[in-house]
Amino acid sequence: LAVIRDRIEELRGLMKERQVSAYLVPSADPHHSEYVPEAWQRRKWISGFTGSSGDVVVTLDRAGLWTDSRYFLQAEKELEGIGIELFKMGCPDVPDLVTWIAENLRTGDSLGADPQLVPQGRAEETCRLLLRRGIGVKWLEENLIDILWKNRPALSAAPITLQGVEYSGESLEQKLARVREQMKAENVRIHIITTLDDIAWLFNIRGQDVAFNPVAVAYAIVTQENAKLFIDPNKIPDSVSESLRDSVQILPYGQFKGELSGHAKKKDRVWVDPAGVSRWITGIIEEGCDLLYKRSPVTVFKSIKNDTEISGFRNCHIRDGLAMVRFLSWLKRTAAQGGVTEISAAETLDAFRKEQDLYQGPSFVPISSYAAHGAIVHYRATPETDVEIGPQGLYLIDSGGQYLDGTTDITRTVALGSPTEEQRDRFTLVLKGHINLALASFPRGTKGIQLDTLARLPLWDRGLNYGHGTGHGIGSYLNVHEGPQTLSHSTGVDVALEKGMFLSIEPGYYKEGEYGIRIENLAYVVQDEARTTESLEFYRFETVTLCPIDLALILPERLTRQELLYLNRYHERVRETLSPHLSGDDRQFLEDATRPL
Amino acid sequence: LAVIRDRIEELRGLMKERQVSAYLVPSADPHHSEYVPEAWQRRKWISGFTGSSGDVVVTLDRAGLWTDSRYFLQAEKELEGIGIELFKMGCPDVPDLVTWIAENLRTGDSLGADPQLVPQGRAEETCRLLLRRGIGVKWLEENLIDILWKNRPALSAAPITLQGVEYSGESLEQKLARVREQMKAENVRIHIITTLDDIAWLFNIRGQDVAFNPVAVAYAIVTQENAKLFIDPNKIPDSVSESLRDSVQILPYGQFKGELSGHAKKKDRVWVDPAGVSRWITGIIEEGCDLLYKRSPVTVFKSIKNDTEISGFRNCHIRDGLAMVRFLSWLKRTAAQGGVTEISAAETLDAFRKEQDLYQGPSFVPISSYAAHGAIVHYRATPETDVEIGPQGLYLIDSGGQYLDGTTDITRTVALGSPTEEQRDRFTLVLKGHINLALASFPRGTKGIQLDTLARLPLWDRGLNYGHGTGHGIGSYLNVHEGPQTLSHSTGVDVALEKGMFLSIEPGYYKEGEYGIRIENLAYVVQDEARTTESLEFYRFETVTLCPIDLALILPERLTRQELLYLNRYHERVRETLSPHLSGDDRQFLEDATRPL
Repeated sequence: LAVIRDRIEELRGLMKERQVSAYLVPSADPHHSEYVPEAWQRRKWISGFTGSSGDVVVTLDRAGLWTDSRYFLQAEKELEGIGIELFKMGCPDVPDLVTWIAENLRTGDSLGADPQLVPQGRAEETCRLLLRRGIGVKWLEENLIDILWKNRPALSAAPITLQGVEYSGESLEQKLARVREQMKAENVRIHIITTLDDIAWLFNIRGQDVAFNPVAVAYAIVTQENAKLFIDPNKIPDSVSESLRDSVQILPYGQFKGELSGHAKKKDRVWVDPAGVSRWITGIIEEGCDLLYKRSPVTVFKSIKNDTEISGFRNCHIRDGLAMVRFLSWLKRTAAQGGVTEISAAETLDAFRKEQDLYQGPSFVPISSYAAHGAIVHYRATPETDVEIGPQGLYLIDSGGQYLDGTTDITRTVALGSPTEEQRDRFTLVLKGHINLALASFPRGTKGIQLDTLARLPLWDRGLNYGHGTGHGIGSYLNVHEGPQTLSHSTGVDVALEKGMFLSIEPGYYKEGEYGIRIENLAYVVQDEARTTESLEFYRFETVTLCPIDLALILPERLTRQELLYLNRYHERVRETLSPHLSGDDRQFLEDATRPL
Repeated sequence: LAVIRDRIEELRGLMKERQVSAYLVPSADPHHSEYVPEAWQRRKWISGFTGSSGDVVVTLDRAGLWTDSRYFLQAEKELEGIGIELFKMGCPDVPDLVTWIAENLRTGDSLGADPQLVPQGRAEETCRLLLRRGIGVKWLEENLIDILWKNRPALSAAPITLQGVEYSGESLEQKLARVREQMKAENVRIHIITTLDDIAWLFNIRGQDVAFNPVAVAYAIVTQENAKLFIDPNKIPDSVSESLRDSVQILPYGQFKGELSGHAKKKDRVWVDPAGVSRWITGIIEEGCDLLYKRSPVTVFKSIKNDTEISGFRNCHIRDGLAMVRFLSWLKRTAAQGGVTEISAAETLDAFRKEQDLYQGPSFVPISSYAAHGAIVHYRATPETDVEIGPQGLYLIDSGGQYLDGTTDITRTVALGSPTEEQRDRFTLVLKGHINLALASFPRGTKGIQLDTLARLPLWDRGLNYGHGTGHGIGSYLNVHEGPQTLSHSTGVDVALEKGMFLSIEPGYYKEGEYGIRIENLAYVVQDEARTTESLEFYRFETVTLCPIDLALILPERLTRQELLYLNRYHERVRETLSPHLSGDDRQFLEDATRPL
């Protein structure tokens, strides 16, 4: 505790030197990644708060942390006695971060912040709101935390690998050609790419710099004439540099700034993605350049999987399904005997995945949650919270794997012992919602927000709901959360679903203090041949996840004929695909778990 | 033809004098109304095009009109031989207006435009895009068309009336107090109101300056201390000015500009609605004032009807239902004998409405369309297109009335003779969609875009769809189209539905060259008591429109039990409410038209 308090005092000393009355420490990195490399986890260092999301502001006499409902409990515990106030975002009467700064600083005061860590849009909004109260923003090039943080871990130097065309389905040259075509149409000379998975996709490379996301820390600049990759050269094995040589100029990460300044001098027209570009970048180029703020063509191309990637997804889901079935079979045999905990169960599942070809590691921290823990949507079992999975109750496991040929994300909820009638009722409603969406046909141009409702209808009809989106995009051996497409009523609402986009379908139901239910499969958008006419193109989903849905939790009489047919056909496909690769107890388990209702 | 060509040449002369190479003539007025008063229909004057939507640009050697698909045929006809090119918006390879200007002007050239007719958002976007090509925008205070247009009609001087509390349910003072509370919360000194129906609602006045919308041309400025209404004083009868005197200062319309300049000098913080504020207004105040761009609280308050307004809606829908039933009964008896045309039918319906208490006139131009005309979504029968309603085929009538106690908007599709199996099939799908939405339960916070899908599902399931939104908001003896709420996937997508909001539910199906189907009722949002729990509030719709849905077009075996129950109960309610007020043939018609299936 004293360590953290000392750090905050040291920061205040520096703030006085730099003449700022408040300093912003966001949980962000220069690439606005969902997972931040250890070397850039400054928010954790200054506050002790370990959650993945939350911003700290330190003033000369106060300090606050803003985080969302996922982390209320954890933040309360971790901030205890440290002198940082917790602001629960979204709760009534809780001021947002900027309002709080405006109220705690005086006219003429300044907020200090690292422009690398603030996206352009947020920077503009913050400046605008503070200016209204006569408060300025100082963009300090040098990060104040970095000055104080002795023994800050170095950025990873782990080597990158090539993602061969056998998995990516498209060469670097072809991808660059498509990007350049878009650039030409927009009449821009250069395109700046800052998002790590966009860079990994475009250059057909993968890295190890960030947990769970196989990406490398880098910037890229594409022009009609060349493509420059700014990355620690020590990470590039000879074989990789040889392969990139013809199309890509590899430069040290630190030279990115100088390159930007050069473009600013040339007054180029530059394409930047408003979601990824930091205030630091726009600050360097905005004077000289004419900026086009528009979603990167790389983000759009990446979201639409080609035939090779689709095959990869189908193939890795067979292997992932085998790991899941062996896990569920093991759980059913073992849990009743006692001794299996949330953490040990997740470890066992990972061990089954490790036996599969092309497996590279988990795609996110698994949510392995028993009984009441299942109602905590983003639960993460720690040694302190870990409990034994008992002989009765619901167990929810949300997990995924990174394979060279694709990324998986699956949730299954299973009953230990005999489920209650209420649990079967709620599970059946969630299943009906899942099937509603999985079977949906929709015209070209339909956005995810228009379909999100389908998964909720059976719950709404009973006065119930769930507090998260219905689905997210997913990368191909890349980030488990990938935009721009979603099945949600709050994000990605302007994005039409396109053929080749992959999405999770994951409705749920949560009863606080008792249990959680979620059924998640991955699916991709295909043409609906049966409904498409000359005048109107229809799309539908094709599910790739292969794993039984617990029959013990279903009330078959509550399913429509169509729903029952869907379930039985799905289970038949799971059985026929996986069964040949299984034997003994596991095979028997699968036979039983996929029997027709 | 020659007249129009001469006008364009005269305009070019003026353009040369003012040193602009292009001049924009939008179909807009300073208040951005859906219907533009005759005196401001400059686009019609310069082009001869009479459609309600379409912008003209004249350069020194070319001229173009941009309009949407509703008006393609009409514009082609009306522009023939005039020398104005038609640009069909939304068609492939058709440049948008700004792109076309950029391509037809040279660096250093300027576009001229009247800042009163361009909303701030559009002005910014236009300037930004043209600047990229080195083209400037000159905001010319004097409208060039007005200079040329001899005998331009005067603005209406029709008197305004008070909308008494017996219909509005809330006094002007109470409304002002609520607006001022919001202004205080936003820390603004003044709020500028430019939208005519917002002004009518706030001051509890109604006017006759615009067709179909009972509004008066005016501006308003509200501060904590006073409220100023800028309006032609000749329009205010003594009784009205007496009633407003205590709370409102009435000033001539022309003094609005001076008032704005005064606020600019005082450097006030000003609230303007980005949807309604023109470049002219922001041009006057932007230098001095700190502007808050946010939807007007008046727009939000107006959209949520109070108990008095809800009663008014229920009551006027009984009267409107009686007019509709008498009309449908008459049509059934008369059409087969011949001699009834689209126009004469619409006139007859209006005559039935005129017999009802509190009727003030139609709420929009009725769409009275027989057979193939029904497939033209925004069809308007003219003497040239008018056809006799034959003994066979579908007839679609979309119409509405303005009553002192509310506004109606209803569409019914009826079969003359025997409908085909296909027509019954499609009608049944549209009806299923309508009922899906009418019966929906949804948690508080749900937006219209999340529900729009429900009305489409039965059509989507069969590879069909319709090309318009599912529903719009509606005013209380005000505009038939009122925001911000919608049931649409393209507009109002960020607006949560609130208790007391009225919406139309109007799915359809259109077969080009053959027939059109639409079933439209008005409904409002109420608490769903049956589903609301302590932790989750649910809403549902309550339908107010009372008129039979043609049973001859329904395939009862295709309705679910729930849908059949809904239909029978609806018809029972229609019969029990309207029947006591009818007699003879009309009563007999209603009995038959509402018999249970």
